[in-house]
Amino acid sequence: MAESIVDLRSDTVTRPTAGMRAAMAAAEVGDDVYGEDPTVNALEAEVAALFGHEAALFCPTGSMANQIALQLVVPPGAELLCDADAHVVTYEMGAAAAYGAITSRTWPAVGADVDPDVVAGMIRPDGYWAVTTRAIAVEQTHNRGGGGVIPLGTLRRLRQIADAAQLALHCDGARIWHAHVADGVSLVEYGSLFDTLSVCLSKGLGAPVGSLVVGSAERIERARVVRKRMGGGMRQAGVLAAAGRYALAHHVDRLADDHAKAARLAEAIAPYGVLAGPVRTNLVPLDLTKAALDAHSLAAAARAEGVLVSVLGPRTARLVTHMDVTDTAVDRAGTVLAGILRA
Amino acid sequence: MAESIVDLRSDTVTRPTAGMRAAMAAAEVGDDVYGEDPTVNALEAEVAALFGHEAALFCPTGSMANQIALQLVVPPGAELLCDADAHVVTYEMGAAAAYGAITSRTWPAVGADVDPDVVAGMIRPDGYWAVTTRAIAVEQTHNRGGGGVIPLGTLRRLRQIADAAQLALHCDGARIWHAHVADGVSLVEYGSLFDTLSVCLSKGLGAPVGSLVVGSAERIERARVVRKRMGGGMRQAGVLAAAGRYALAHHVDRLADDHAKAARLAEAIAPYGVLAGPVRTNLVPLDLTKAALDAHSLAAAARAEGVLVSVLGPRTARLVTHMDVTDTAVDRAGTVLAGILRA
Amino acid sequence: MAESIVDLRSDTVTRPTAGMRAAMAAAEVGDDVYGEDPTVNALEAEVAALFGHEAALFCPTGSMANQIALQLVVPPGAELLCDADAHVVTYEMGAAAAYGAITSRTWPAVGADVDPDVVAGMIRPDGYWAVTTRAIAVEQTHNRGGGGVIPLGTLRRLRQIADAAQLALHCDGARIWHAHVADGVSLVEYGSLFDTLSVCLSKGLGAPVGSLVVGSAERIERARVVRKRMGGGMRQAGVLAAAGRYALAHHVDRLADDHAKAARLAEAIAPYGVLAGPVRTNLVPLDLTKAALDAHSLAAAARAEGVLVSVLGPRTARLVTHMDVTDTAVDRAGTVLAGILRA
Amino acid sequence: MAESIVDLRSDTVTRPTAGMRAAMAAAEVGDDVYGEDPTVNALEAEVAALFGHEAALFCPTGSMANQIALQLVVPPGAELLCDADAHVVTYEMGAAAAYGAITSRTWPAVGADVDPDVVAGMIRPDGYWAVTTRAIAVEQTHNRGGGGVIPLGTLRRLRQIADAAQLALHCDGARIWHAHVADGVSLVEYGSLFDTLSVCLSKGLGAPVGSLVVGSAERIERARVVRKRMGGGMRQAGVLAAAGRYALAHHVDRLADDHAKAARLAEAIAPYGVLAGPVRTNLVPLDLTKAALDAHSLAAAARAEGVLVSVLGPRTARLVTHMDVTDTAVDRAGTVLAGILRA
Repeated sequence: MAESIVDLRSDTVTRPTAGMRAAMAAAEVGDDVYGEDPTVNALEAEVAALFGHEAALFCPTGSMANQIALQLVVPPGAELLCDADAHVVTYEMGAAAAYGAITSRTWPAVGADVDPDVVAGMIRPDGYWAVTTRAIAVEQTHNRGGGGVIPLGTLRRLRQIADAAQLALHCDGARIWHAHVADGVSLVEYGSLFDTLSVCLSKGLGAPVGSLVVGSAERIERARVVRKRMGGGMRQAGVLAAAGRYALAHHVDRLADDHAKAARLAEAIAPYGVLAGPVRTNLVPLDLTKAALDAHSLAAAARAEGVLVSVLGPRTARLVTHMDVTDTAVDRAGTVLAGILRA
Repeated sequence: MAESIVDLRSDTVTRPTAGMRAAMAAAEVGDDVYGEDPTVNALEAEVAALFGHEAALFCPTGSMANQIALQLVVPPGAELLCDADAHVVTYEMGAAAAYGAITSRTWPAVGADVDPDVVAGMIRPDGYWAVTTRAIAVEQTHNRGGGGVIPLGTLRRLRQIADAAQLALHCDGARIWHAHVADGVSLVEYGSLFDTLSVCLSKGLGAPVGSLVVGSAERIERARVVRKRMGGGMRQAGVLAAAGRYALAHHVDRLADDHAKAARLAEAIAPYGVLAGPVRTNLVPLDLTKAALDAHSLAAAARAEGVLVSVLGPRTARLVTHMDVTDTAVDRAGTVLAGILRA
Repeated sequence: MAESIVDLRSDTVTRPTAGMRAAMAAAEVGDDVYGEDPTVNALEAEVAALFGHEAALFCPTGSMANQIALQLVVPPGAELLCDADAHVVTYEMGAAAAYGAITSRTWPAVGADVDPDVVAGMIRPDGYWAVTTRAIAVEQTHNRGGGGVIPLGTLRRLRQIADAAQLALHCDGARIWHAHVADGVSLVEYGSLFDTLSVCLSKGLGAPVGSLVVGSAERIERARVVRKRMGGGMRQAGVLAAAGRYALAHHVDRLADDHAKAARLAEAIAPYGVLAGPVRTNLVPLDLTKAALDAHSLAAAARAEGVLVSVLGPRTARLVTHMDVTDTAVDRAGTVLAGILRA
Repeated sequence: MAESIVDLRSDTVTRPTAGMRAAMAAAEVGDDVYGEDPTVNALEAEVAALFGHEAALFCPTGSMANQIALQLVVPPGAELLCDADAHVVTYEMGAAAAYGAITSRTWPAVGADVDPDVVAGMIRPDGYWAVTTRAIAVEQTHNRGGGGVIPLGTLRRLRQIADAAQLALHCDGARIWHAHVADGVSLVEYGSLFDTLSVCLSKGLGAPVGSLVVGSAERIERARVVRKRMGGGMRQAGVLAAAGRYALAHHVDRLADDHAKAARLAEAIAPYGVLAGPVRTNLVPLDLTKAALDAHSLAAAARAEGVLVSVLGPRTARLVTHMDVTDTAVDRAGTVLAGILRA
């Protein structure tokens, strides 16, 4: 029965493959709080190098990786700018404010689009009178923005804006791999644009657990203290890092398949006018404003036929393709969803 | 020389009048931390009644009154929605995040306008997955919004939206007196729309120090603890409350004069295309985007001729009329500014 | 009737004298948020000079002055050491943790005594493994320590310990004036021992409202931002500062009278074995462990006869002498309390 | 060469055994953020049952488990009492204050001893005037207390005190398994004494990663939100939970061996007068106050001979026995250390 379920809720549901499990079982480990886990150390060096940064730090989750990065670049009482649908102000339970004492203002999110001039207009200078802006965060690809990819030109313009105002630029790169595969922009190029990045091994890449913060050696040294404060200093984390290394070696290029599957899924339901925007990567965002049924009804009807869908809002939903969804499953899901939407 | 200065930077610069000073000198006082200052108690009861609420609490500043209110209605880790130019996320140094653990998302500010549908669309429901919205804050009149007044209909619609989503609605009413005078909406009517309000005695009303949080008896009881934590539990505060009572008795209706002065000032400089919007109350917002000089240059030139102006941004400035600016002074300032802008 | 009450609860209950009220009524004022209140500026310069420090900042309360100082010397996540009965961890509602993200460990309090070796043994060095100690706070005189005075030698030893470990040393000097008068140690001498001090004008000195943080110019510049964040940036605060200046000029030396009154009060009740320790200043601490009645019963019985007493715990209470308690009143209180204790 | 190292720094350095790795490789997994990881769910149910509580939550570290528990039982601005050497105020980087807004006062630590009367005397009641005590935390066994075990009678007395004052009682039970084995007190008995516990699978029990918070169903439901905020919501955490389940099944009873090894180690060095106290479990605390060399010198000398030791302070050090230290290794370490101390 579980076999017959097509789980399109998220790419976080992927289970480790046999090869990945073998890598985990064979992993050489040590106490990472002492800095002595060779597999963690290797993964951190590898990821830092991928993005052309000096250092990286392994964390249990992408939320922690983001929050550590934000605490590194925004002092207490200062301000982060991001879009109103950003993961960092949506799914991380207010941690930037609650734990980092970071205040935020947001620009309106429309898909993954960012208008650099709008962002520039929001920046507030250092000073006694008003809260000081210290960082801008973007999300690549953008989760609630339907898996959209921010164009390289936009990111470069944001970098210039950040430089001019002496701000840090952070990338929530949980799915930056998908942007890299979709747009052909190298990871080093992406790395060159940001002061800090978080990247996730546990979504599209299929590792069970793990994200990294990427940045300068000085920042990552401070990140170790923050990670300990957040409760993220794991011991023999090499068993997880081994899965991450395996994922980097085997699961990046294959994301193109997930993108193709998402495109096919989108095609199947396109006639019903519910696509919230173009499908660029592995996410298919649905806008049910004009549909006969709302998001919960759609999800319930699909679930009854073995297809799992994420509800994001009363009239918004999301389909996600990933390693554990076969072409056949995608086609079946397309048929099921088309049937529901047609009715 | 000081006599010849026309200070249009803010209505916070007003000095207590002779009558007000006499009231302060004669004030009966006690230890307000023990709840025994009769003048403070009288002021709190008076202000609560003005807004039709159960209770009010005297605070040293409007920032503290706002922050106490926010801590009352938004639990740590939950979310406040407000506009991106709101005083609470601009001039209060990140206190909502830093001290209240309150995360914020903002809608774009255009003057004092609020689009209730945009606000409604930003609300996130209670739940495990995402940060929960718990309150909406508006500012009446709106400081960075050029002293604009949010129409009663808009506020009523926001109240409905807040009720439907079980959110608190807070009013930063530092200058709500100006809205009351400009629009003729009663203070009780305003009070009925909000769960909590902050109101200021030290801006247009001319008291030297003091603001109040207004709300239910239960909330104000909790507010006493928060005020103590914020360091706002003053002792013989009756010397200040006496000034506040005097201000309420003598300085509310006269705000119409300040509005008229602002209108006359606006008229004097209208020909130079720098008014950022209509002048509704005692603030004259300037947009120098198309002017020959930027905000710092304007302020410097005006200062050289004895007129003080607030710089809000590279190309934005503000003129404020108040009790201590005579009609003659307004005319002189108009002439000075027109001269500078003409050049 | 109110005339016949002898209020020994606290020296915070003092009301401004006629001379002080006159000074307030005549005060020259300005907008202190702009740094333009001449009376506030004069008071700040005066207090800084009294303690031989570069600068001082006027605050609405002693709690805020303490908390600002702590936020200046202890970064978020770092540690403050103080005694378990210190005002900063007792009466300030957890603000150091809640607003300053400051963690605290405490040494056991026995009166005002401090064992420098115990303090030295608690210090934890900078590092990755454990929380770092960054400051030590002492209280002079010590409120819950019965108004006791920490000897100069002890403070000098603590200064050496702090220097050796590169820690800041903060003095909660709300009643440091009493220590100065009792021990004859100059205020400059006290000032030389601490990195930051808070001093209060509103307790023994009799001003209605106001405390100051004292420290280096660099720290006090940062303190302005923190004060704004705490909601302590008042406007025409000169009306309060004038009272403070008057208090400094007229009410310091006379504290010797309050000390004498406390001694006489202690003498009156000494036979009943309830003095918790020697009386050094204006506080008379009572320990009712061996008495026939508990603290609430004592307070109730005294109140019935017009004498007000502070309850600090089930079996601890406190009598405080101050400007508004005459010699006659002290004698009456002594008679009343002796009568109750004898029964 | 690594084989010849005897690592006595901590029981956190243990590496997963072959059996444990096999269990991990075979683990059935799901997305634990969705509550769908069967192995995590089984572990949580198992641990809850072991302690007779309703529920438990898997966390990446013991620090996170402790901090989540503290945030559950102490509201922002309220107080936690613990001893001055407790892990929660020593090794968790100030997280209770920085992230939980929890203020703390501490009683002096002497080994694992707790004087319930001292604790009772520190409790402050609910109220407006002073910070409110809301929880007491103890550590069983006590890390900096030399692995000492708090007697059952003491814990029962603390439970009564907590009940009388309506406080929560939390147990940092990272090594509660050792107390259970050393004193023969059942885990259910321990569970009955505390409102919340944290327990660790990654120290003496030998799992690579993982701790749990244990408590009521209502608290653990709230704990899920806090865990997400802390960045602890891992995905296919079953790979780690499988190791934990294996550890519970195979590695609890064997702790008696580690205790025996610690006793033998202590015996070897007892003649040199450096034992800080009796050895009850797997920790051997050293007090080098009267020794010829300090802690760093001892550690350096031991390291030169292949024995690793933890430095806790200038004159304090710690030896820890665990699964990965054989009897032979213990004997070698004893000989090495005796040789150094003798010299």
